[in-house]
Parts: sequence; C-alpha cells; structure tokens
Amino acid sequence: MNMDQSKIPQATAKRLPLYYRFLKNLHASGKQRVSSAELSDAVKVDSATIRRDFSYFGALGKKGYGYNVNYLLSFFSKTLNQDEMTSVALIGVGNLGTAFLHYNFIKNNNTKISMAFDISENKIGTDVGGVPVYDLDELESRFPADIPVAILTVPAQAAQSITDRLVKLGIKGILNFTPARLNVPGHIRIHHIDLAVELQSLVYFLKHYSTEEKMV
Amino acid sequence: MNMDQSKIPQATAKRLPLYYRFLKNLHASGKQRVSSAELSDAVKVDSATIRRDFSYFGALGKKGYGYNVNYLLSFFSKTLNQDEMTSVALIGVGNLGTAFLHYNFIKNNNTKISMAFDISENKIGTDVGGVPVYDLDELESRFPADIPVAILTVPAQAAQSITDRLVKLGIKGILNFTPARLNVPGHIRIHHIDLAVELQSLVYFLKHYSTEEKMV
Repeated sequence: MNMDQSKIPQATAKRLPLYYRFLKNLHASGKQRVSSAELSDAVKVDSATIRRDFSYFGALGKKGYGYNVNYLLSFFSKTLNQDEMTSVALIGVGNLGTAFLHYNFIKNNNTKISMAFDISENKIGTDVGGVPVYDLDELESRFPADIPVAILTVPAQAAQSITDRLVKLGIKGILNFTPARLNVPGHIRIHHIDLAVELQSLVYFLKHYSTEEKMV
Repeated sequence: MNMDQSKIPQATAKRLPLYYRFLKNLHASGKQRVSSAELSDAVKVDSATIRRDFSYFGALGKKGYGYNVNYLLSFFSKTLNQDEMTSVALIGVGNLGTAFLHYNFIKNNNTKISMAFDISENKIGTDVGGVPVYDLDELESRFPADIPVAILTVPAQAAQSITDRLVKLGIKGILNFTPARLNVPGHIRIHHIDLAVELQSLVYFLKHYSTEEKMV
C-alpha cells in the first residue's frame, strides 16, 4: 500500500492499537470476517467512525460481508511496525512505575521496557518484573542510544529536570504520567496522561453530557 | 451565563480541567491577565485551539490585553462544579490502585477517593493513603448510594464481573484502567485509559508524524 501514513488523522491513528488488539483476538478464535457493527460493539467506537477510519487504510468493507480479518490484521501489523521492537526506559519506580514494570505491555508485541531508573537505595540493583533498576545518577552512562521512548513516573517536581537530561540523551518521545507540563524542543513528542485530569473530566461529563454519546 | 453546557464539544470539555489547574496557579502567583500564547506555552495546547475553546464560554480575549484571570477562574470553577465534592470508589488495590490512593487527586478540589476494595487479606482492613480498604465481597453492603464514580484497577479478567456489580449498585461512570473493554448499559459512561494502547500510540506517532503537530 503506497498510502502516505501522515495523511491519517491523529484521532484515527490513536485507535489503531485498539483495533489491532481486537483483530488479533478475532483471528486467534478462527474468525474470517467481521462487520463494523461487531467491531463497534467490541471496541466501543461507533461504527460510522470505524468505517471512516478503515477507509483511510483502503479497507472497504462489503455490504453483507464486512471486513476480511486476515487482510486487516496484516495491514495493521505492518502499519504498527509489529515486527520491529521498540525499547522503552522507565524513570521512577514508585507504585505507578512498579505497576508498569509488572505489566510490561505483554500484550504489545513491539514495545518492551528494558531498563528502569530510581533514586531509592532499596530499589537500585533490584529487578522489578524482570527489568533491572539502575541508579538515576547513572542515567547518562547507562542509557543506550537505541532507546527512543521513556515513561515518566516520577514526582511532579522532578519531571522537568529529568526530561532535560533525557532530551540531551536524544530521547524522541516521552509518555508523561506526572501532573507537570513539560517543556521540550519541538522535535520531541510528549503524550501526557494526567490522572487527575482524567478523573475530573469524567465527573464533568457525567454532569453535563448525555451518556449516549460515548468517547474513546 | 445561560449557555447550554451540552453545546461545548467533548474535546473542548476534556481540556477544561487542564485550563483550570493552570489558571489557579496563575491566580496564586498574583497574575491578573494572561494571553492565549502564554496559556498555550504552559498547557501545551496550540493557541488557536485555546481561543476557539474559550469562545464557547463567551470568554473573548482582547487584543493586546488577553484574558482576565479572575473571570476565567470563577467561570471554570463554576463549570467544573468545584464547590461540589464527588466521592469516588477504587476497586483493586494493586500497584496501580495504590498509586491512586497515595495520590488521591490532592490537586482536585472536587473529587476524592473515599473507599477502596480488594480481595487480598493483607490489604482488607488497612488504610492506604488514608482511604479504608474493604473486602470486595462486601461491595454490595458497603457501597454508599452517593458514590457515582468508580476507578477500576483490577486484573482484566475480573473487570466485567465487577462492572456488572457496580452497574447494579447504580454507578454512573467508570474510569477503566484495565485492558478490558467493558459492556455497560447506554446510560453509564466509561472513560478507558489503556496503558498499552497509550504506549503503542506514542511509538506509532514517533514513526509516522512530524512532531511539530503535538497532541494533547
């Protein structure tokens, strides 16, 4: 497919990993085809949105047939670079960081936390979920050139200074779980997941919106 | 302001808690006005989006002056129901759940985790971050009628059955941190934060998008 990937809207791109996971399950259960209604029910995205998303990939379902599971799966697999492993570093092995290390994205084939850093003597030198924890003071000497992504699970007040160090080390993207808004050069991508904002936003939606129009 | 809240686009509504937090900080530091460029720099949302968002609230900045901090703050405070406390229950006191309990949204004035549930004997009967942990078997007898929101941090395979029980208890919204997609009646709102999908999505964006167009 010669499609220009950068033409896919960001909102669509955000849903790709979700579609991919569900299609893998479908495939594993031996299913050959799926309708946008079935997909919609499973991933909780309305079927008009699914049809529009899929049309960007040139995957056009047939009426009364639906989509070919194998075709979609191999397309998503390629698009999501499933055959290429991305190493990730985690900074901050508190409760949230520990949760990530134990989880370690076992359902993702293409991302793996390969090292973690902390300042606590109780944690330095241990393995958490099979991942070695190093001294944050050794970040510069330990950090390999082939890690493009870091997960930041440190206290908010430490977030910017550690980010500055990661930027010097050539990081390309940061998944920021701290409440801090990070300042980085324009070529670095930050995805910010602020747990307090997520909760406040849910409460706001409960008060102000009909729940028939769901978000993803 | 007689504006119909339900006319605010959901993407705008999602940014309200972010704006509100930053404006509180500005106000605390004695600032009287703020430009959309300053706001943009602080909250990492482009200023055209900020201006469009604010226009929905009838807050129209003046050229060369910007926005009045007090006005915005009192408007957001009212809109986000800052004077009304929402109690939240947390189900699943593992690493992720423990992180939430210690955090307990201290920066939110209007949301508070008031009780937690788990199945582990080591945790039942303890306080984590000042929040009592009860036996999940006692969910039906302990759960008060005035808790509209639950945070779900349980293993994926337990998510749907616990959700079914919460639905029977009259829950209105669930913040779902499990990889499971939950089936609920249409009047219940689910916000799903799938950590594996967030990581995969960041990796995808690093490979396919120019990083100058940031997401929030």
